[in-house]
Amino acid sequence: MDYRIEKDTMGEVKVPADKLWGAQTERSKNNFKIGAAGSMPLEIVYGFAYLKKAAAFTNCELGALAVEKRDYIAQVCDEILAGKHDDQFPLVIWQTGSGTQSNMNLNEVIANRAHQLAGKKIGEGEKTLQPNDDVNKSQSSNDTFPTGMHIAAYHKIIHVTLPGIKKLRNTLKKKSEDFKDVVKIGRTHFMDATPLTLGQEFSGYVAQLDHGIKALENTLPHLAELALGGTAVGTGLNTPKGYSKRVAEFISKFTDLPFTSAPNKFEALAAHDALVESHGALKQLAVSLNKIANDIRMLSSGPRSGIGEITIPANEPGSSIMPGKVNPTQCEALTMVCAQVMGNDVAISVGGMQGQFELNVFKPVMAANFLQSAQLLGDACASFEEHCAKGIEPNKKRIKELLDNSLMLVTALNTKIGYYKAAEIANTAHANGTTLREEAVNLGYVTKEEFDEWVKPKDMVGGLK
Amino acid sequence: MDYRIEKDTMGEVKVPADKLWGAQTERSKNNFKIGAAGSMPLEIVYGFAYLKKAAAFTNCELGALAVEKRDYIAQVCDEILAGKHDDQFPLVIWQTGSGTQSNMNLNEVIANRAHQLAGKKIGEGEKTLQPNDDVNKSQSSNDTFPTGMHIAAYHKIIHVTLPGIKKLRNTLKKKSEDFKDVVKIGRTHFMDATPLTLGQEFSGYVAQLDHGIKALENTLPHLAELALGGTAVGTGLNTPKGYSKRVAEFISKFTDLPFTSAPNKFEALAAHDALVESHGALKQLAVSLNKIANDIRMLSSGPRSGIGEITIPANEPGSSIMPGKVNPTQCEALTMVCAQVMGNDVAISVGGMQGQFELNVFKPVMAANFLQSAQLLGDACASFEEHCAKGIEPNKKRIKELLDNSLMLVTALNTKIGYYKAAEIANTAHANGTTLREEAVNLGYVTKEEFDEWVKPKDMVGGLK
Amino acid sequence: MDYRIEKDTMGEVKVPADKLWGAQTERSKNNFKIGAAGSMPLEIVYGFAYLKKAAAFTNCELGALAVEKRDYIAQVCDEILAGKHDDQFPLVIWQTGSGTQSNMNLNEVIANRAHQLAGKKIGEGEKTLQPNDDVNKSQSSNDTFPTGMHIAAYHKIIHVTLPGIKKLRNTLKKKSEDFKDVVKIGRTHFMDATPLTLGQEFSGYVAQLDHGIKALENTLPHLAELALGGTAVGTGLNTPKGYSKRVAEFISKFTDLPFTSAPNKFEALAAHDALVESHGALKQLAVSLNKIANDIRMLSSGPRSGIGEITIPANEPGSSIMPGKVNPTQCEALTMVCAQVMGNDVAISVGGMQGQFELNVFKPVMAANFLQSAQLLGDACASFEEHCAKGIEPNKKRIKELLDNSLMLVTALNTKIGYYKAAEIANTAHANGTTLREEAVNLGYVTKEEFDEWVKPKDMVGGLK
Amino acid sequence: MDYRIEKDTMGEVKVPADKLWGAQTERSKNNFKIGAAGSMPLEIVYGFAYLKKAAAFTNCELGALAVEKRDYIAQVCDEILAGKHDDQFPLVIWQTGSGTQSNMNLNEVIANRAHQLAGKKIGEGEKTLQPNDDVNKSQSSNDTFPTGMHIAAYHKIIHVTLPGIKKLRNTLKKKSEDFKDVVKIGRTHFMDATPLTLGQEFSGYVAQLDHGIKALENTLPHLAELALGGTAVGTGLNTPKGYSKRVAEFISKFTDLPFTSAPNKFEALAAHDALVESHGALKQLAVSLNKIANDIRMLSSGPRSGIGEITIPANEPGSSIMPGKVNPTQCEALTMVCAQVMGNDVAISVGGMQGQFELNVFKPVMAANFLQSAQLLGDACASFEEHCAKGIEPNKKRIKELLDNSLMLVTALNTKIGYYKAAEIANTAHANGTTLREEAVNLGYVTKEEFDEWVKPKDMVGGLK
Repeated sequence: MDYRIEKDTMGEVKVPADKLWGAQTERSKNNFKIGAAGSMPLEIVYGFAYLKKAAAFTNCELGALAVEKRDYIAQVCDEILAGKHDDQFPLVIWQTGSGTQSNMNLNEVIANRAHQLAGKKIGEGEKTLQPNDDVNKSQSSNDTFPTGMHIAAYHKIIHVTLPGIKKLRNTLKKKSEDFKDVVKIGRTHFMDATPLTLGQEFSGYVAQLDHGIKALENTLPHLAELALGGTAVGTGLNTPKGYSKRVAEFISKFTDLPFTSAPNKFEALAAHDALVESHGALKQLAVSLNKIANDIRMLSSGPRSGIGEITIPANEPGSSIMPGKVNPTQCEALTMVCAQVMGNDVAISVGGMQGQFELNVFKPVMAANFLQSAQLLGDACASFEEHCAKGIEPNKKRIKELLDNSLMLVTALNTKIGYYKAAEIANTAHANGTTLREEAVNLGYVTKEEFDEWVKPKDMVGGLK
Repeated sequence: MDYRIEKDTMGEVKVPADKLWGAQTERSKNNFKIGAAGSMPLEIVYGFAYLKKAAAFTNCELGALAVEKRDYIAQVCDEILAGKHDDQFPLVIWQTGSGTQSNMNLNEVIANRAHQLAGKKIGEGEKTLQPNDDVNKSQSSNDTFPTGMHIAAYHKIIHVTLPGIKKLRNTLKKKSEDFKDVVKIGRTHFMDATPLTLGQEFSGYVAQLDHGIKALENTLPHLAELALGGTAVGTGLNTPKGYSKRVAEFISKFTDLPFTSAPNKFEALAAHDALVESHGALKQLAVSLNKIANDIRMLSSGPRSGIGEITIPANEPGSSIMPGKVNPTQCEALTMVCAQVMGNDVAISVGGMQGQFELNVFKPVMAANFLQSAQLLGDACASFEEHCAKGIEPNKKRIKELLDNSLMLVTALNTKIGYYKAAEIANTAHANGTTLREEAVNLGYVTKEEFDEWVKPKDMVGGLK
Repeated sequence: MDYRIEKDTMGEVKVPADKLWGAQTERSKNNFKIGAAGSMPLEIVYGFAYLKKAAAFTNCELGALAVEKRDYIAQVCDEILAGKHDDQFPLVIWQTGSGTQSNMNLNEVIANRAHQLAGKKIGEGEKTLQPNDDVNKSQSSNDTFPTGMHIAAYHKIIHVTLPGIKKLRNTLKKKSEDFKDVVKIGRTHFMDATPLTLGQEFSGYVAQLDHGIKALENTLPHLAELALGGTAVGTGLNTPKGYSKRVAEFISKFTDLPFTSAPNKFEALAAHDALVESHGALKQLAVSLNKIANDIRMLSSGPRSGIGEITIPANEPGSSIMPGKVNPTQCEALTMVCAQVMGNDVAISVGGMQGQFELNVFKPVMAANFLQSAQLLGDACASFEEHCAKGIEPNKKRIKELLDNSLMLVTALNTKIGYYKAAEIANTAHANGTTLREEAVNLGYVTKEEFDEWVKPKDMVGGLK
Repeated sequence: MDYRIEKDTMGEVKVPADKLWGAQTERSKNNFKIGAAGSMPLEIVYGFAYLKKAAAFTNCELGALAVEKRDYIAQVCDEILAGKHDDQFPLVIWQTGSGTQSNMNLNEVIANRAHQLAGKKIGEGEKTLQPNDDVNKSQSSNDTFPTGMHIAAYHKIIHVTLPGIKKLRNTLKKKSEDFKDVVKIGRTHFMDATPLTLGQEFSGYVAQLDHGIKALENTLPHLAELALGGTAVGTGLNTPKGYSKRVAEFISKFTDLPFTSAPNKFEALAAHDALVESHGALKQLAVSLNKIANDIRMLSSGPRSGIGEITIPANEPGSSIMPGKVNPTQCEALTMVCAQVMGNDVAISVGGMQGQFELNVFKPVMAANFLQSAQLLGDACASFEEHCAKGIEPNKKRIKELLDNSLMLVTALNTKIGYYKAAEIANTAHANGTTLREEAVNLGYVTKEEFDEWVKPKDMVGGLK
């Protein structure tokens, strides 16, 4: 392999000749062979690209950086954001907990690439940009990494998570309306209960997702707060006057997202409660989605020996050994995602609780778990919507059969003959394997006419009064 | 022991003669000998007392219950709320997951106590109130239990959790102001870093709690939604017209809290995402408080071999074997509470995710964990404030000594001589055990005068620009 | 209220005159008003009583304590173990993380009670026993508390957890044998699958519990290791020669459990991995039990619109509004316990991971969560066995009906006509609502005789080959 | 793009012409666009390759498969295990929860590749192997996927996790011996305590890891149990006599690991408690390692304002803004891994608890989390050992300085003058900023000679008696 020599304050390091990174990236690559290479999410890299560009613009505007340097930085950042250098970020999540070398990875790649853009060969001639003094100007890993992760997290929620969840929510809403007249047996404790409509059942799912979306949106203002401008410990040392506010404005402009400068930079470096908070809402959504997907799995169970009240699309052969089997695979994928998100919530909380003094050094693990949850939830909801939810249909024959058989219709008699007599009717019908009507009349508590008048499933679901 | 016979739809049961409860409570008591007796939180019982009274008023107003019956119910509920019947609720958390027998416990105690108030002996004469038909009128366990738990949870947050946290927040805020001129060394990665003030350090804690309080308050509207009126499966079967809205108004009036009727009762019975959501915020606060308490523990460590930058009150002898030892015991109690809250969050999420069809049957475990977290966080913050935070004082001598020695002051030279030369100065001073000033001059990068002009800790903390 | 004055190294404290505790207990009581009073589990107190008595015997035997003092200590410890002083331990879990004041609570109660036994009034005359110098001789909170919690935890597992789980396991085993000939439809993905016997289904539950019991037993040797003898930091300072080993022998003798002296006392004070380890096995059991209880809930669902393959005992009226309803309440209690144990596992792990230097100061929260899990699992299994499992019966009519209808019996044809043709038969029967036999013959893939010969549910469950 | 047509029981699918997979893989690829493509761990693929080969050998030996077919299957499996087809497994974790399409992915790739090896073009001529009837013979996804994940998990623990942990354990053991005479101050509650040696402190870490390794090894027998032979629901339908035992022997032989046939196949399909159990031990190790890494971080803190009792290697520049900063980055990477493992434990438990009837459909998420934890722990320990632990050196000057200053040496006087007088000495010295010796003599409790005789740090660490 072909190498060149790169230097940092600790000395020389050999770097593959065809790579843009420098000494510190290479050190980190060698020092942290933990898990698969390159596991640091690219979203973080892109978050950095936005902020490096914004910092360059701000520094320039405030007289701390030459226009030419600004433009080089911006040009490389744009290339990075266009995905042209994805293979230049080989570091892992499991590095220093401040992500310092990932910051340096950006600084080094930008400096070296700028040198190329200036028509020179890396390592030759005067440096076009200094990684620490120019690219990292007015910055520290301690404020850039949390800024990068907030940008990545916010971006993911807006562009992946919320769209996916809302798509599913809207389809469930439509189903709820489509099924509004399908009266069916209710089930509490997994036991037969009084009737409701299939539309009402689905409306509960919609309400869950509406609350979850609201909860997630409630967390966005905290997530919009950017640490940038705090530098090393939150005091903003080595930043020009006006920097914090202005750099947030540039980031906001470049990303088209409503970022603000964190009012308290000490919190923004030493704690990542914004991630904890937002992920709490993702976890709530996982809790909701697990319930919804599990219900749909059970409602569609069968085809002959389950609940079978709805049908869902058959997307693939369900078994390698049982011919003709079709399974609720989208429910399974979604609930697996929910389990993952619940685990990630603990990983994030455990990381979040262990900040010490001026810095939390669980940044990469927190960011990576957050981004995974946000991606998976958005994708899984979209997949579930497309390949399952939108194809859900009621199995009306089965629904009617189960409804007509139900003993819990007896509840309608409570207000007529009292709970105790009603219970006697139900218990007798259960014991004898007969119908409520038969036993109600036999026991002499109601006439056939009264029974037919009072026990009408349709009237038992009639909207909340 | 003296017994009387009580009956329900399953037959006769012997109940201790001096107890107000009836057959179903006794059955549950015998069927669920799991953990300590009486573990169902009294807060839930009180929540039920509010709602039973409100239901009686609503039923009466809507013509479904006689005024006399309403008044009996209200009178017993007031007695319960005054703590006069605390020993009449012997059931455990680990019963049916709908809390049905806890609902019946209330129904039975209210009915039997009303009978006494009517001047009769329990079990003799015509029943003054029927537990199911009168006390439980227009209700089901499935809507009362979630209503009771929302009342209890909301009440606890307003009256215990938030006051405790705000008390601590205010004291930390005051300390932050008191310490605003105490310049000290910063620490990142638990290593010496650039300086900040002790006030700034504490301001980060305040910002964490402010965000946590906001996050918790964001969850209150969902928690304010009451299931009552949904009855068995959410359809509101057997409730009079107008009931849901009116009963929430009565509860709101009786509790002086802004409760509303849940717009979707199916969600309110089948999912308890409101508890998941609110507890997510409690968990976030636990994450924050763990960081704060751990910092204070470390800042006060010593007295001779630790960090020692602050002193905290000595409240009790710290050791049964080491004479004269004083420990950060309030930090320890608080961080133990944080660990508990983090665990409770998982218990609540695991319960919340497992609802099936029209009912979630993990209600008692979710409610009990929620109430424990809310109580402990409020109490622990109040305790920490009173016995620790308000007595925190800076150890100025120690702070100055550490600050003056710091090698990280060199960062101020970055913008003057560049990062690389500054690093050389710091590395040399570290290797030689000398001062930055000495080596900066030796290396010829700055003059003594420049050093003194440029490296001023006070100027390095100068507020965010 | 009547008070007396007690003293410690910090000065005087007023203590209720009728209480046996002293100054430090009272301080802790006042300084930690967090949650309900007296929450420190009594099991820990009893664990301490065993160890205080054992320490007295060991100290005496090694010449470090007078026989008379030993006997006083032993006498009070026996009284404590007989439950005579349960109201003398008012402290909470949420105190110092070393449990120091709970250790002092024991020291003080033993000293004061001994004074009474010596015929004197508390606070008058020369002390019969010094709390620190006699009762606490050769001990520190740092080694006594972990010893107390190991004794309590081991005791609970042996006397509550394992008996409860084994009782359930044995009943499930018996059911598995009773049901060995009941051929039923299998379900994978909650969808109809090839048949098995109900006995085989239950044998899986037995295998889960057998593995869980084994896993729990595997953790006992670590839990048997006692910290006692390590004193303040693990070095055993201020203990007589031979103390560690001998004191563990005495504890072993007094408790009739196989305790040993921890080979490394530094680990035994600074980490509580033994609790983490053992609770990991409790959590595994919770995972298993959740599956089992949920299966039984679903298998017994109905009575008319569920799976309904088994019946479980009806223990209490299931609904306050739906007459005649019976619910799988024991399944619900057990799964709620499982959710709690899963949460407790996180609380214990979060506590366990945060030890610092020579001491872990999350002892009380770890111990309390452990003891709760161990108690609840044991109790819930015993309750589930008695009130549910032992009454489980197959609903043979329903089982046969579902089996005969199943499309997955087609799998038996794979080895005869290949997977693809078999799939065609199943798909056609599903689409037409017909039987496999009908379509198999129609499609010309088999004759009626071949079908009857090859597709025999009984032959499809025939034991593993 | 160039396509060919593949078929399954649902019809035709277009597959990229250059890929070996077939219809079902392609369906799954299109139906589950959740997260990054190809996320199903390759370790699972390799586990499958072992078992497909073993199944072919067993089937052949038992007369159910032709020798030629066996050899084709074995040849392709060997190619897969040699890493030649890594790009032929494009499926994601978030698919059907049984991993059915991943099983089919193997079946299809093996069949198509065998066809190539037979000198034919995919899709042309008679199939060399049928995916379902030959490659999947005597198998179901339901028994192959759990077998594949057990193989992968066991392999990872033996070849990555345990070697990494043991390497670190051995280095810490060596350090413990090297430092056995370095007497230093102890710290409990993060406060100064009685002395111990640095070697003793490290011996606690070794004991933690020894217990963790033992705990992990205890779980291996359960993990060694293979589901293969259970086929669809655990009954072993469509397997030849003797298959289960023999196929486990072949797997054992091919992997050189002690696999056995699970005695109860119903448990092996419907529950994955073996993963829960083993990961519980990984989580315990994470708890231990978090403590160890955090201690080392704190012990090495400084260089001027921390604890500073040890030095660790400086591996990379620690800050992009603070020149000369060196950080405990290996501690940070390791503790981040611990946070991840703690989260993964919850994901695995949540998946494990939700099995239903004959199948647990959280297999891929459980396997993926398990493998990640096992890999990360092994790698992180190896990295920590190489780049941190083996370079740890005591800072003897600093250690001595702190030790000599300590007030807790007073504990040695307990047995001479009693706890109360000793406390008075310590408190006075603390208040006056003086030495113990000075105040001990001033207070008249001991002479200088006695003090020097009795208070010798070296004698206070003298091994457990």
